[in-house]
Amino acid sequence: MITVLSGGVGAARLLATLSDTLDPSEITAIVNVGDDLTMHGLTVCPDLDTIMYTLAGLNNHQLGWGLEGESWRVMQELDALGGEAWFRLGDRDLATHLYRSQRLAHGATKTEVTAELCDRLGVRVRLLPVTDDALATCFDTDLGRMSFQEYFVRHHHDVAVSAIDIVGADEASASNEVLESLRDASKIVIAPSNPLISIDPILRVRGVRDLLEQRRDVVVGVSPIIDGHALKGPADRLLAELGHEVSCLGVLDFYKGLIGTWIIDEADATRADAVRSRGVDVVVTTTIMAEPENARRLSAAVLA
Amino acid sequence: MITVLSGGVGAARLLATLSDTLDPSEITAIVNVGDDLTMHGLTVCPDLDTIMYTLAGLNNHQLGWGLEGESWRVMQELDALGGEAWFRLGDRDLATHLYRSQRLAHGATKTEVTAELCDRLGVRVRLLPVTDDALATCFDTDLGRMSFQEYFVRHHHDVAVSAIDIVGADEASASNEVLESLRDASKIVIAPSNPLISIDPILRVRGVRDLLEQRRDVVVGVSPIIDGHALKGPADRLLAELGHEVSCLGVLDFYKGLIGTWIIDEADATRADAVRSRGVDVVVTTTIMAEPENARRLSAAVLA
Repeated sequence: MITVLSGGVGAARLLATLSDTLDPSEITAIVNVGDDLTMHGLTVCPDLDTIMYTLAGLNNHQLGWGLEGESWRVMQELDALGGEAWFRLGDRDLATHLYRSQRLAHGATKTEVTAELCDRLGVRVRLLPVTDDALATCFDTDLGRMSFQEYFVRHHHDVAVSAIDIVGADEASASNEVLESLRDASKIVIAPSNPLISIDPILRVRGVRDLLEQRRDVVVGVSPIIDGHALKGPADRLLAELGHEVSCLGVLDFYKGLIGTWIIDEADATRADAVRSRGVDVVVTTTIMAEPENARRLSAAVLA
Repeated sequence: MITVLSGGVGAARLLATLSDTLDPSEITAIVNVGDDLTMHGLTVCPDLDTIMYTLAGLNNHQLGWGLEGESWRVMQELDALGGEAWFRLGDRDLATHLYRSQRLAHGATKTEVTAELCDRLGVRVRLLPVTDDALATCFDTDLGRMSFQEYFVRHHHDVAVSAIDIVGADEASASNEVLESLRDASKIVIAPSNPLISIDPILRVRGVRDLLEQRRDVVVGVSPIIDGHALKGPADRLLAELGHEVSCLGVLDFYKGLIGTWIIDEADATRADAVRSRGVDVVVTTTIMAEPENARRLSAAVLA
């Protein structure tokens, strides 16, 4: 049984590759919910949905997010009405949000709803929202305080950030399923997701960090920074803005005390000794999953 | 200035015809919100939307409800997910509900949101929800207590009703706009909507009944019962189940003390004297609006 701390796209790819090798039912993903939002009255869970759609084979390769075969009738009409249409919700995707919102309104937990949706979509990897409590990643920026999606989607993460605040983290509890999976896993993987805005909200939920510290020997992390750059998204920029070194070492230091084995890209081979000097095992391999063959190599390294 | 107490389809037709004769900006519709519902996290206002779509010329003639040129992608997908899809929300229609839900979440009142939507759709008749407070028409039935839409849509109003409860009516206040329009109107019209479930929720909101009693001389009602039958919907069945006479007289008695002039159909001409004997003026004309010419005659009678 392996458990993967997961953000969105990068984690989804890793999980898809892992589930080609392992029986998917042996994999649990603990998923960030800090960028979940309420939009138009609907509860939207971008990371959970990205993973779910990817594992169901329904992800939209053209867009890089959302569902394949998507249509946009509702958004077109909402736009025509002068509504807030900057956060694009496709017609197929909306069905997920309607389903979830209705079930939550009827008292189901996010954990339960996620299981129902996965079951319906044939996803056999177990997806667990890190918490059923409210969690909201907020940004203090040059344009003022804003929500995750305002930062990420509305402003295309093109605004300087001075602080990240995980609102609700102090009160949120990890679900029992999450704590169990962290206790029972033979391996805990930290996916190459954004450390500050995808993984940190998971670590900040009560109970998670303690368990990782206790189980550090089986914790394997994959660096999301390759030769000083993020493959995608604002991880590099955010690390710099918030005073971290923008390298695989900077991320490792951010995860201080949690990592047993750190997987870095071949482009960072010269930094392997510096990883070892921090008392952490190191594996150097390709960490870019664009090519299936590379993804398999990364997957093998994670499972080794 | 005329003010029309309005339910859904029947009122929408009358309003559309009236606005062919009068300047639409001289017409105010006070609209029932007792069948409003929260579905999938969205606030849905069936009567407001039926009137709005009809006056915008966007109503779906085939279906008899909803929008023309509607598509059903979201509902198909929701159905495939095993979601609650019995209350059909079309893709175009959903945009209205997303818009409204988002604006309400941001603190706008239903009155304000309705004005915004009407403005966007080019509707010049002023639509006023009778109240911005919560109001929910509930039914005690052979199958237990249920909401308006469970009764009306899910069970196709094909279940015996023992009582109707307008939850929230005692606490709900009519908006200032509603009270003003009732005070200032040169004529107040009660549309041929269902008296028990479309008009009564309006009358029960604090302030409305008192104003109608005071202004009874200018109140004109149109009977929704013709020769003992409702043209559409469960008005006849409900009147019988709840102990009222199923006739234009039974409805007039239900509106006791509120009506100055009662418009009945030619099929009920023999009942004209019985109306007069109740101290109410009577007009006998066609009240079936299916033919435009008939609708114009009814409209002329209302305005006479």
